[in-house]
Amino acid sequence: MTINVLFAARPERWDMYRGPLSDAFAEAGLDVTLAQEIAPGEVDYIVYAPNGPVQDFTPFTRAKAVMNLWAGVETVVGNETITQPLTRMVDEGLTKGMAEWVTGHVMRHHLGTDLDVLRAPGDWGQRTPPLAKDRPVTILGLGQLGQAAARMLTGIGFPVTGWSRTPKEVEGIRCLSGEEGLREALASALIVVLLLPDTPETRNILNADTLALLPEGAVVINPGRGPLIDDDALLAALDLGQISHATLDVFREEPLPEDHPYWAHPRVTVTPHIAAETRPETAARVIAENIRRSEAGEPLLYLVDRDRGY
Amino acid sequence: MTINVLFAARPERWDMYRGPLSDAFAEAGLDVTLAQEIAPGEVDYIVYAPNGPVQDFTPFTRAKAVMNLWAGVETVVGNETITQPLTRMVDEGLTKGMAEWVTGHVMRHHLGTDLDVLRAPGDWGQRTPPLAKDRPVTILGLGQLGQAAARMLTGIGFPVTGWSRTPKEVEGIRCLSGEEGLREALASALIVVLLLPDTPETRNILNADTLALLPEGAVVINPGRGPLIDDDALLAALDLGQISHATLDVFREEPLPEDHPYWAHPRVTVTPHIAAETRPETAARVIAENIRRSEAGEPLLYLVDRDRGY
Repeated sequence: MTINVLFAARPERWDMYRGPLSDAFAEAGLDVTLAQEIAPGEVDYIVYAPNGPVQDFTPFTRAKAVMNLWAGVETVVGNETITQPLTRMVDEGLTKGMAEWVTGHVMRHHLGTDLDVLRAPGDWGQRTPPLAKDRPVTILGLGQLGQAAARMLTGIGFPVTGWSRTPKEVEGIRCLSGEEGLREALASALIVVLLLPDTPETRNILNADTLALLPEGAVVINPGRGPLIDDDALLAALDLGQISHATLDVFREEPLPEDHPYWAHPRVTVTPHIAAETRPETAARVIAENIRRSEAGEPLLYLVDRDRGY
Repeated sequence: MTINVLFAARPERWDMYRGPLSDAFAEAGLDVTLAQEIAPGEVDYIVYAPNGPVQDFTPFTRAKAVMNLWAGVETVVGNETITQPLTRMVDEGLTKGMAEWVTGHVMRHHLGTDLDVLRAPGDWGQRTPPLAKDRPVTILGLGQLGQAAARMLTGIGFPVTGWSRTPKEVEGIRCLSGEEGLREALASALIVVLLLPDTPETRNILNADTLALLPEGAVVINPGRGPLIDDDALLAALDLGQISHATLDVFREEPLPEDHPYWAHPRVTVTPHIAAETRPETAARVIAENIRRSEAGEPLLYLVDRDRGY
């Protein structure tokens, strides 16, 4: 019998995902009808984006799972009309893309290439950055994304410290956890990268107190979630030079409002939430695999734990 | 008996090298007098930089070797007053620094971070670059530097092709050589990195013909040597958009003259010959090891072959 899969994301995503999803369903041997509109009572699975058209899941009486296309679920997890299993996206393509984005921006700050991009004609001023081995990087968050970024950076030679709320062990990096570990992880970080989920425990984890723990002139890179940073505290630390630069991809409000002080601040680089782009080819395979598992009665991949919030 | 080592580089280098060289000589168990001025007839070894004070080596009748502080020897190799063995610098620190510089600028072009650095306030325009696996990089030159850069880039996920004049095998990268190999190496390169020595055979290796082999919109990165590129041909290819950007660290004349068209060209990034900086700590150990070898009658490391030119 045909499985009805509703594609509930923004219309412009339909063109990107339609082909890869059809291919992935075929590869997985699933007989699927995929559409942007299906009568709610006939929908078996919902492929979902939080900024898409569906907010009330009550009419989807037959749906067996809601499969989020995004890694972040903080705007979905509190939706009480979702009574089905909810999965988040762990997309190998997204993970690689994130590790590359982090590596690119770490290298940008490490080498100081902004000086080259903005160099005035005739300016032959030379400076030699230290080697990567002398530039400690701390990553807050040791999930899939944090670990992938850590691996790529250690491959280049950076000494990487990873911090997580609960203890973890990751080969090749120094792992710290808990309150005391956070202090230690920040105290040695010339570059700090935020890759934590947005939960009540992680909100404002970079605030006036924790920013003050960083060595003077440290760099902050946030491709994680906007609310991880107390924006006023970061702006104050940037004004003082305590933080020499912040590269920010995520914000409390997106698009970042035109009058937000981040836009014009000479020590801030804004990128428009591009670090963690789900890649249709790899993401489609995850969706297909989860439908196959559900139909076979096997446990779903990447089920959201609604108590933990991710 | 004390060994007299003349430090014949620019005075500002003396402060950088004096300590590391003294440490390295002590570590190697050598009794050395190191100075910027020693009577020529009493000099045993010359630590040399091509832009330093010595051009005529005739008075150094006792000197047993000339040890270049730089990787490049093209301005030294034709100096007929050098009758002693001549070594070039192969510095592990320089090699790492070069690989990092190449990786940083490849990532800069791969992610398109210049757009972020120059982003106008309020511009939320999103674009997602392909993954590194879909961005082939070609490195011309498979010496120490080319291989180190290739390894770092393959670690990130780039498919790397390496080209050398004579056939080489390097694990993990596609190796091509010779005339036909060059055509193939360029035809698939979205980013091409020049890490060849400057010899009569490599001069103008990027010219109108070879630039035309690159896919339209390719990026050129030159941390190798200025004369590898026919500058007029590159400027023409940039104007046409055949090459979308060039990041150049080395030039026929350095510092790059203020009126050179590279400075003002919107598709050119100039960096002031900073990619291959010798690092005093690691370079000093190479110098000390070569003096130890010479004193013990062992063959010197990194001897220049004056026929090959490097």
